[in-house]
Amino acid sequence: MAVIDINADLGEGFGIWELGDDLALLDVITSANVACGFHAGDPLIMRRVCAAAVERGVTIGAQVSYRDLAGFGRREMDVAAPELTAEILYQLAALDGIARVEGGRVAYVKPHGALYNRVTRDAAQARAVADAVREYDPSLPLLTLPSSAVRDVADGLTVVTECFADRAYTPSGALVSRREPGAVIHDREAVVERAVRMAVKGTVVAVDGSEVALKARSICVHGDTPGAVALARSVRSALSDAEVALEPFA
Amino acid sequence: MAVIDINADLGEGFGIWELGDDLALLDVITSANVACGFHAGDPLIMRRVCAAAVERGVTIGAQVSYRDLAGFGRREMDVAAPELTAEILYQLAALDGIARVEGGRVAYVKPHGALYNRVTRDAAQARAVADAVREYDPSLPLLTLPSSAVRDVADGLTVVTECFADRAYTPSGALVSRREPGAVIHDREAVVERAVRMAVKGTVVAVDGSEVALKARSICVHGDTPGAVALARSVRSALSDAEVALEPFA
Amino acid sequence: MAVIDINADLGEGFGIWELGDDLALLDVITSANVACGFHAGDPLIMRRVCAAAVERGVTIGAQVSYRDLAGFGRREMDVAAPELTAEILYQLAALDGIARVEGGRVAYVKPHGALYNRVTRDAAQARAVADAVREYDPSLPLLTLPSSAVRDVADGLTVVTECFADRAYTPSGALVSRREPGAVIHDREAVVERAVRMAVKGTVVAVDGSEVALKARSICVHGDTPGAVALARSVRSALSDAEVALEPFA
Amino acid sequence: MAVIDINADLGEGFGIWELGDDLALLDVITSANVACGFHAGDPLIMRRVCAAAVERGVTIGAQVSYRDLAGFGRREMDVAAPELTAEILYQLAALDGIARVEGGRVAYVKPHGALYNRVTRDAAQARAVADAVREYDPSLPLLTLPSSAVRDVADGLTVVTECFADRAYTPSGALVSRREPGAVIHDREAVVERAVRMAVKGTVVAVDGSEVALKARSICVHGDTPGAVALARSVRSALSDAEVALEPFA
Repeated sequence: MAVIDINADLGEGFGIWELGDDLALLDVITSANVACGFHAGDPLIMRRVCAAAVERGVTIGAQVSYRDLAGFGRREMDVAAPELTAEILYQLAALDGIARVEGGRVAYVKPHGALYNRVTRDAAQARAVADAVREYDPSLPLLTLPSSAVRDVADGLTVVTECFADRAYTPSGALVSRREPGAVIHDREAVVERAVRMAVKGTVVAVDGSEVALKARSICVHGDTPGAVALARSVRSALSDAEVALEPFA
Repeated sequence: MAVIDINADLGEGFGIWELGDDLALLDVITSANVACGFHAGDPLIMRRVCAAAVERGVTIGAQVSYRDLAGFGRREMDVAAPELTAEILYQLAALDGIARVEGGRVAYVKPHGALYNRVTRDAAQARAVADAVREYDPSLPLLTLPSSAVRDVADGLTVVTECFADRAYTPSGALVSRREPGAVIHDREAVVERAVRMAVKGTVVAVDGSEVALKARSICVHGDTPGAVALARSVRSALSDAEVALEPFA
Repeated sequence: MAVIDINADLGEGFGIWELGDDLALLDVITSANVACGFHAGDPLIMRRVCAAAVERGVTIGAQVSYRDLAGFGRREMDVAAPELTAEILYQLAALDGIARVEGGRVAYVKPHGALYNRVTRDAAQARAVADAVREYDPSLPLLTLPSSAVRDVADGLTVVTECFADRAYTPSGALVSRREPGAVIHDREAVVERAVRMAVKGTVVAVDGSEVALKARSICVHGDTPGAVALARSVRSALSDAEVALEPFA
Repeated sequence: MAVIDINADLGEGFGIWELGDDLALLDVITSANVACGFHAGDPLIMRRVCAAAVERGVTIGAQVSYRDLAGFGRREMDVAAPELTAEILYQLAALDGIARVEGGRVAYVKPHGALYNRVTRDAAQARAVADAVREYDPSLPLLTLPSSAVRDVADGLTVVTECFADRAYTPSGALVSRREPGAVIHDREAVVERAVRMAVKGTVVAVDGSEVALKARSICVHGDTPGAVALARSVRSALSDAEVALEPFA
């Protein structure tokens, strides 16, 4: 029987500002990537999201980021490795402490936005992130792409592969850049069908029509655009119909 | 035999900016109040200070603050209790995680600057801070003044009294406001003599000449002004000469 | 013929986060209080709001605030006068420069949130704000309540009175605190009727049923809650029906 | 008779933190690159530096930066052009307004740190900066390196070349990277001699011994390292001895 995890970004408001529908998403996903205050998320939001996740049995992950509230962590930054490692440690520890107060704990780490992309190809920053995880708790898995520089520097760590139901893939299994047309798939049926294939067969149909192996243990869904939660619900429902077991990876 | 702790604020730089001589102070004090990033201190500074404290056997405390880098946490803020509690939890957990990576741990909590003053007289904010400590780890002592609203809301917590060798006191044992002339004592001999009296007799000579009981377990020294480290060294040396045992309270 | 201005807060998003419907409000109001980056508003948002306001002939005001993104400028802060003056100057100049690039200019100043409330009763902070306006451009009016410490320190400045259509008033013409029940009026007809009375008769019916003179030149409407824009439209429409001329005060 | 300007970075403290000796530097330089709050500099510091510059007849320039206090603007960031343009406008306008209140005005623009380097080779970011200057006031010169992408996108703007007395140059007139040994020259006599040659002959002796034309109108000196102010004084004194006229370029 196929087993898959569904993860999404949560707690991405800040102060008065809200983003996405955290409570609705918590009923869909099995793993919550909780923002840690550097690209979004303030301590009170972090606390509320952790409490709600614990209440629903959803696993908590640390969605660590560059320090960039103004840019929502979406701008690559040339942060020196020792500083990046310390910044990841800070975020990870802050969220873990808050999660523990709410009866949970941080169970995995997923870099956010520009850092997520950067560590798939920049060994220095990938190592800086991996170092932080290793030092904090080497049993915490790191979520990344099938092909990622993180894998080369993650000695002693668990690396978990994720895929995106609504993103186009190249024949080599990489994401089509968002700058390309067709990079994001908006058709609900297509997204749902892709999610099921990812979970059941471990593959995706690439832009050239070829079927590519991804072997992902988690599918990432989004919650910050109109219709996103409804789409996520459809994905979950289709996975259940296909008798895929929904289980957190961590 | 009299026993006393010497505490000071450390790690109060930010990014490129430095403040005080942390390494010199670590040779004088027994407890380091380490800034947690909200009024000062970035993750890399926190990490380095924790490493240096652990190396020298100095106890680490969380110097938690209002979120106010521009004002160095010295401006009182009307922060709502749930938010303040979450902000204290965040800082406490972040520093504790970093301290643990360096082989130590947070062993006590001392509010910084305006928050330190506010919680001595504002029960709501005092309770918000105490709640955070209680939820995170109720065994962590809270450092405050002899007379403080913190004592009224600290059910189940340990409250530790500190005093200031270089500050004038009123006959009721309160600090003379910094806005008053003579609030800060600059004469080295006077400061040293007061420190010894605080440690040996548990008293201070108030501005009216009366001797007031403080019964402090810790003496706070400063490190961010010219001559401050030299003064702190003199205090430590005089305490040793007076056969006062220098021991952390936590 | 009665003349009134309608003002509202605009540009209160930050980075990825949005708040309120700026474009819809611009069709209702005659004066836009544009956030300047200290409680909300980033340079790109400021620019877009200024461009849209200029396009629609809406007057631009600087909505200056404490430096407090995390608290949306809603927490009172004990900022020293020289610092507060400099911070107001900075925000005012930044917005004015951006407005000028878009073909407009800052035509008045309205403190935001906690600063707005504080300067109605704290002469030192009121003077700090007034000093900034006087130094930058003494021809810029300052928007405040009928009874306000701003009036006592505004030598050489123009002070303009505003009122709130959806807020309850005490018999002395002060706002009922938001902590009291009934402080905010939600009934659309009541709000509209009050707005017309404010504009035509210059009065409001206080909580004890007495009619109190406000003599406000501007009515503040809100845009950040559900139904707020629709309510603001009703207010504008009713004012037009009552043959009140809608004209900016600056 | 040779004419040169001496520029340096000023106002680079933040809140309680200080950096460099602004008042001492103001007696050496003819142009002050004043930080605008994004990498350093708060409104009060900006105000004090502008007042001191005006008092001494030193020209004020806007030292604009990425939004990065934690990294002192030294980390390259992938900021989108419209956002970068708006951020530059914001900083430029804020400083200009403050300078005008103090009796001066912003007379030129110099990007700081990572942005300075980036715009010498990234046409998109260079254009974003040039657009901001053009929109704000096209008469403001932009300070950059002899070889810089800024020159290609500065239609309608004045570009002014600067050089560094204490930096090694390649035979093509580029700066030797700080990562290379010998990139920074510490020997006082060598620095002074290079400065005089830069001013009098418009050349520098490159690392291979060849003499390269720089034709710089301004020499940049530093003030944030020990001995820096003394070195800057020596440079100024040697330039005077060589009968070079010290005059701001703007």
